[in-house]
Amino acid sequence: MCSSGTYDETAGKVISCKAAVVWGPGQPFIIEQIQVDPPQKMEIRVKILYTSICHTDLNYWKGENESQQVFPRILGHEAIGIVESVGEGVVDIKEGDHVVPIFNGECGHCVYCKSEKTNLCEGFRVAPFKTVMENDRKTRFSTRDGQPIYHFLNTSTFSEYTVLDWACVVKIDPEAPLKQMTLLSCGVSTGLGAAWNTANVQAGSTVAIFGLGAVGLAVAEGARSRRASRIIGVDINPDKFVKGQAKGVTDFINPKDLDKSVHEKIMEMTGKGVDYSFECAGNVDVLREAFLSTHDGWGLTVILGIHATPRMLPLHPMDFFEGRKIVASVFGDFKGKTQLPQFARDSMRGVVNLDGFITHELPFDQINEAIQLLVDGKSLRCLLNL
Amino acid sequence: MCSSGTYDETAGKVISCKAAVVWGPGQPFIIEQIQVDPPQKMEIRVKILYTSICHTDLNYWKGENESQQVFPRILGHEAIGIVESVGEGVVDIKEGDHVVPIFNGECGHCVYCKSEKTNLCEGFRVAPFKTVMENDRKTRFSTRDGQPIYHFLNTSTFSEYTVLDWACVVKIDPEAPLKQMTLLSCGVSTGLGAAWNTANVQAGSTVAIFGLGAVGLAVAEGARSRRASRIIGVDINPDKFVKGQAKGVTDFINPKDLDKSVHEKIMEMTGKGVDYSFECAGNVDVLREAFLSTHDGWGLTVILGIHATPRMLPLHPMDFFEGRKIVASVFGDFKGKTQLPQFARDSMRGVVNLDGFITHELPFDQINEAIQLLVDGKSLRCLLNL
Ligand SMILES: [Zn+2]
Ligand SMILES: [Zn+2]
Ligand SMILES: [Zn+2]
Ligand SMILES: [Zn+2]
Repeated sequence: MCSSGTYDETAGKVISCKAAVVWGPGQPFIIEQIQVDPPQKMEIRVKILYTSICHTDLNYWKGENESQQVFPRILGHEAIGIVESVGEGVVDIKEGDHVVPIFNGECGHCVYCKSEKTNLCEGFRVAPFKTVMENDRKTRFSTRDGQPIYHFLNTSTFSEYTVLDWACVVKIDPEAPLKQMTLLSCGVSTGLGAAWNTANVQAGSTVAIFGLGAVGLAVAEGARSRRASRIIGVDINPDKFVKGQAKGVTDFINPKDLDKSVHEKIMEMTGKGVDYSFECAGNVDVLREAFLSTHDGWGLTVILGIHATPRMLPLHPMDFFEGRKIVASVFGDFKGKTQLPQFARDSMRGVVNLDGFITHELPFDQINEAIQLLVDGKSLRCLLNL
Repeated sequence: MCSSGTYDETAGKVISCKAAVVWGPGQPFIIEQIQVDPPQKMEIRVKILYTSICHTDLNYWKGENESQQVFPRILGHEAIGIVESVGEGVVDIKEGDHVVPIFNGECGHCVYCKSEKTNLCEGFRVAPFKTVMENDRKTRFSTRDGQPIYHFLNTSTFSEYTVLDWACVVKIDPEAPLKQMTLLSCGVSTGLGAAWNTANVQAGSTVAIFGLGAVGLAVAEGARSRRASRIIGVDINPDKFVKGQAKGVTDFINPKDLDKSVHEKIMEMTGKGVDYSFECAGNVDVLREAFLSTHDGWGLTVILGIHATPRMLPLHPMDFFEGRKIVASVFGDFKGKTQLPQFARDSMRGVVNLDGFITHELPFDQINEAIQLLVDGKSLRCLLNL
């Protein structure tokens, strides 16, 4: 449909296309024909070229608590696409542009977007319970017989076409390698940005990363590109250690091999602890180890894991008087529209190396197999080719 | 003994003088004649002119847990004095200099002192369990019959003469008003520095202070001097509100008057919360209120209270994903020797106003009355005149 490079035929019209729809918690993704409305004011309709699957998709697919159970829904938030058409008021992005959807948008004019201290936009920040578009609180997706299909995470990329708010669309260099650009949408930006923006890792500093999934490995790549002198990877799966090495991890700790706690081991290895630790496990006990592994006086722990249990932070207020700090990082503290285009260029110039994150590739209609690969811990990212 | 301005008579010799000695937990301070040894290498012997009492003195006086029960001991850590003599190697401070002791020292050459990120010196940071001098791990104080008397908090200022490590002595402008300079030793530096250094309060920003004792009021003065637009004081004692107004507090909340939580009230007053909150109460429930009172995206909570109970921080890891941060501040993040001389000059120039913190003054031998004033919440600081 887009091979001619022009979309005059479809602009302003409803598009009928394929999407992977989930009809209930944990039910298989069903590839079916859906209707995608034209973009409204300050919206953009995008033809998705590649999309990949992240653990956050899995959480909302399973719909573990009631507020997550909004179905039918189109999940997916990591992708690269081409603009099919734009709504009223969009002037800086046009049909044919290469774009990356971001779940944590940037409107550019709210008090948050104007602050240098946060990347949480007032209207378009990550909002997993939002299921409709901002403009009219309605969906742009429907079944062939007109039943609404709900949006997910400002993005809904498991579809040949999706409609996004302008604030959630980042235009990138058309020369950038398409497949790797999907990584900018979520996990890799989150990990790399946590090292670059949240922690601001300095040359010669020391780092520990707890959990070496895609996010943890992206932290390593961020720390490596900043010339950290030592990057300690911690994971209970020894297979992760090989991948870690390629991303600059210099030392490995498998907690299962230790007769002491991980932070005691790290103190032994480093003398006084690491300058920065990153928790990518979503486990509060691991988080406490990460905190205690840092150097007193200035150690910074960055929370990246999603902590699903009600267990509280296992720290005492007096623990902070040793000068250790703890912060969380959302989307790597990237202001997406402002900063991701440069990240794309950095990857093209080799400042940062995005090789190795995409471990598998499948056609779109094998999305259920792709999900199983992630569930089984076999893939970092499996690309779906639309 | 020092009226002539020269100390040739005493330099190098043991000095016999008065000190307030505590012989057991919670026992009255006894003014008695003690022996003070000459300063050793990189030590300084100081004649104390004025000293004041802080809640930390009370905690170690009561000796609530076993490790605090080291007696006989000379407490006290807020003071101004004149150098009587210096030990070998001290070249930049000489007899007759006006000096302020600091319990959180700065050696200037350790990895911590060289870092811009911390004021916790490797050798001379605040160490309440340390009871001897660094040089020889012995005391410089003894009773007339030679029994050692222990040091406290690198300072021990409840004595006509004390011996300090060079790292814990700050030389200040001889024109600075003597009495107010005692405030630089602890509480006021802690509060003011928390606003200036730890939080780096910006002009036009909003602040909430939980607990309006000397430290909380010093936070207010720090925020006022940085031209914060709104300073909300929270205290259950309405008497504190009058003092607060003089220090720039613009709004008061008495939690006892509310039918909602303090953070709900602050949200109501400010729309989205304050930019900075300061917890000076040493209570974890108050700390949680302080955290929840800040603006999402960038709100910073500074822990100043000493949390004596084993209760953990009542926060969930996911609370941090709203972009609120929490840090502790030791000695207001001042690097004492480097920064306090400028603080003294700022107070002389009127940049910061130290009036109102010293509410009482008594002769040294009425130290027990002075302590009662603090215990009863009647004084902010009672100056003891030696
Ligand atoms: Zn915004
Ligand atoms: Zn994701
Ligand atoms: Zn004190
Ligand atoms: Zn030092």
